[in-house]
Amino acid sequence: MKVIKFGGSSLASAQQLTKVLNIVKTDNSRRIVVVSAPGKRNSQDTKVTDALIAYYKAYKNGDDTSENQSWIISRYQSICDELGIPGAVMGSITENINALASLPITGNQFLYDAFLAAGENNNAKLIAEYFTENGINARYIHPKEAGIIVTPEPGNARLLQSSYAKLSALGNLSETLVIPGFFGVTENDDICTFSRGGSDITGSIIAAGVHAELYENFTDVDGIFSAHPGIITDPKSITELTYKEMRELAYAGFSVLHDEALLPAYRADIPLVIKNTNNPDHPGTKIIAKRTMPGSPVVGIAADGNFTSLNISKYLMNREVGFGRKVLQILEDFNIRFEHMPTGIDDMSIIIRNRYLTPDIERLITEKITETLAPDTLYFEKDLSIIMIVGEEMNEHIGVTARAANALATAGINIEMLSQGSSEVSVMFIVKTNQEIAAIRALYAEFF
Amino acid sequence: MKVIKFGGSSLASAQQLTKVLNIVKTDNSRRIVVVSAPGKRNSQDTKVTDALIAYYKAYKNGDDTSENQSWIISRYQSICDELGIPGAVMGSITENINALASLPITGNQFLYDAFLAAGENNNAKLIAEYFTENGINARYIHPKEAGIIVTPEPGNARLLQSSYAKLSALGNLSETLVIPGFFGVTENDDICTFSRGGSDITGSIIAAGVHAELYENFTDVDGIFSAHPGIITDPKSITELTYKEMRELAYAGFSVLHDEALLPAYRADIPLVIKNTNNPDHPGTKIIAKRTMPGSPVVGIAADGNFTSLNISKYLMNREVGFGRKVLQILEDFNIRFEHMPTGIDDMSIIIRNRYLTPDIERLITEKITETLAPDTLYFEKDLSIIMIVGEEMNEHIGVTARAANALATAGINIEMLSQGSSEVSVMFIVKTNQEIAAIRALYAEFF
Repeated sequence: MKVIKFGGSSLASAQQLTKVLNIVKTDNSRRIVVVSAPGKRNSQDTKVTDALIAYYKAYKNGDDTSENQSWIISRYQSICDELGIPGAVMGSITENINALASLPITGNQFLYDAFLAAGENNNAKLIAEYFTENGINARYIHPKEAGIIVTPEPGNARLLQSSYAKLSALGNLSETLVIPGFFGVTENDDICTFSRGGSDITGSIIAAGVHAELYENFTDVDGIFSAHPGIITDPKSITELTYKEMRELAYAGFSVLHDEALLPAYRADIPLVIKNTNNPDHPGTKIIAKRTMPGSPVVGIAADGNFTSLNISKYLMNREVGFGRKVLQILEDFNIRFEHMPTGIDDMSIIIRNRYLTPDIERLITEKITETLAPDTLYFEKDLSIIMIVGEEMNEHIGVTARAANALATAGINIEMLSQGSSEVSVMFIVKTNQEIAAIRALYAEFF
Repeated sequence: MKVIKFGGSSLASAQQLTKVLNIVKTDNSRRIVVVSAPGKRNSQDTKVTDALIAYYKAYKNGDDTSENQSWIISRYQSICDELGIPGAVMGSITENINALASLPITGNQFLYDAFLAAGENNNAKLIAEYFTENGINARYIHPKEAGIIVTPEPGNARLLQSSYAKLSALGNLSETLVIPGFFGVTENDDICTFSRGGSDITGSIIAAGVHAELYENFTDVDGIFSAHPGIITDPKSITELTYKEMRELAYAGFSVLHDEALLPAYRADIPLVIKNTNNPDHPGTKIIAKRTMPGSPVVGIAADGNFTSLNISKYLMNREVGFGRKVLQILEDFNIRFEHMPTGIDDMSIIIRNRYLTPDIERLITEKITETLAPDTLYFEKDLSIIMIVGEEMNEHIGVTARAANALATAGINIEMLSQGSSEVSVMFIVKTNQEIAAIRALYAEFF
């Protein structure tokens, strides 16, 4: 059995839904379909989710919401019309959309989530009808019925581990199931959404729950490229990738799949494939626990900007027990997560994402560290980018770091910092952001 | 004014002391002489300090100490005899050595320090007489008179900052001062020693106190070599080194100067030179705040074995605020200092010196981290060596890391981990210990 998930752009129009139908019909092991809300039909269009956000705001402000309601309802109606299906579910959809405007506002921490989730939820009903009309024995399943019971954290729900027992029963149903992505219900029956991009999470959870042979994630690209196509012309697409490699690439700017979406499938050892709804014959990129085909030691090059380095030096620093831990504690007290911590003998650098820092916070951190640890020097270094070369087979190839460092040197790029840990899944270079693109190009030329 | 320090091997015999006398006479700005205890005259000989340790043990055990006393006293007497000086101080030396055996044992935490310090203290008296007999207006100064007032930490004394006011007055005395190294006195007048190799510390403290133009540290080598002469045949000696570079080299196995000895001179911006008593015309190695002559980007290659890496991985580790800090906290609770912490995205390695670990401690750490942080994998990787290439000018030369990584790759050496921090004074490679020598040779061939 396969679990198959479609993103918003695959579900935006009748034309796209026809492709989805064909994909599901082509392979009768595709038995559980997770769907997003309808996306944009063109660049001027509004996503249903964004329309629901506008509706929520109007409702909360006490404004008239009838235009919001009718726009959203007509969006679903127009899909039915284009598809030429009777639209038997439009009654349920209309009622559901209108009923949002009678939910309690005061003390309802799940109100926003209930509005947002309606996009996926109603789309699943519609798609189930469309499938049924076209010869698939389809059945709409609400997350509550499916057993997706989550923690009561609005916008950041996490699956309760106890849910998996019920989820596994989904595999016994005879119909092709259509399940809305992006949300679950709490133990008190409140709608609660995953973090953004959460339909991927739903697909991953269900794939893990039913022990699917494959989790197919359909999007609008032919898989994952070995480097950003905005920087490298026609980059090689990756055939096979391990979960670890995917994580490293995702960390440094590859945004095809949401990090948290990988976790349930990874833990249950379910292979995942990223495919293109618009080009379903392309094999896409398969993400698995262990590479099956030998490949280049480097599978991808990722980069991410907007990093700052907090550089601290103190003579005989490494004689002071707890110095590093105390610095991390101070950052944690300011709710700052550190990314990396390359150290010399008497100096350490702490790499932090810019979004955690403001001039005020930097000043307070400087004061606190100066007061507590009396460093010789302390300064924030701005405009840094992380470049990562990723590949689990690197550790079987001596000299990958040398080739990479050499390619950067030849291109005249100074490596500000460099870290290669024991896992050897990646080597991380930190360069000035104004050299980021040149660095990616130099590394791509070296390895691809 | 220069402060000049002689190590034990420079003071072991009349032949050596004649060299010392000539060195002091050659330059009349050499006005403060810090001395160690007499060292070994040959490889079968006993150092006075080791004889004092034996004396201490015998005294503490209630054994007869007369042989210990007479061996030590006769050691000083024989130096006087060989030098052909009257030995007027032998009365004071004899009395001092014998009096050690009447110090209180019970409740005396400074007893061991008092025994040890006698080696330097009596040698200073003897050398002052020798100088005087040979036309130098010399004066023996006890650390208490000099103003070396320290914290009451036996074997690990630290100078009280308030001492510097008195120390500076030493510069006003007209005589050539001979001061025993290695110890100070507490505010309660107890003898308290610095950590081992502490005569270097005394020299450094006095040089800082009197604002010496130069601190000359005489030993038995022509300065510092760019790599270990046991591994590289005839390594280049280093003419000029910055304090930072010296620290990095000392960290990874260069043991010419004790780390803590550098600190007072460094803080006071006193240049230091390491010279050879047996070859005083050789310029030696000068250690200064800032390099004055342009040189190779790499000044030295150091290596040190006996490291273990604690490797931890956990999927989505970097999403957990405080993960790294918590690991460091656990290590700190076991009194373990970490050396470096190279990180990937979902993995971290913590480099620890072997001496902190036992199978039991490793098991307890494993249990505690597993219980607290539930990593996916955790293991200790043994037999690792740190290789460092050091040079403050590296950051002005693009491609040093590439050259180094390339040299290692060409020699077939796998880099287990690599860290280059923002200071760019050094790049650290971690390799398997059985590849350490090959790695040093490959790097030396590349840079020298």
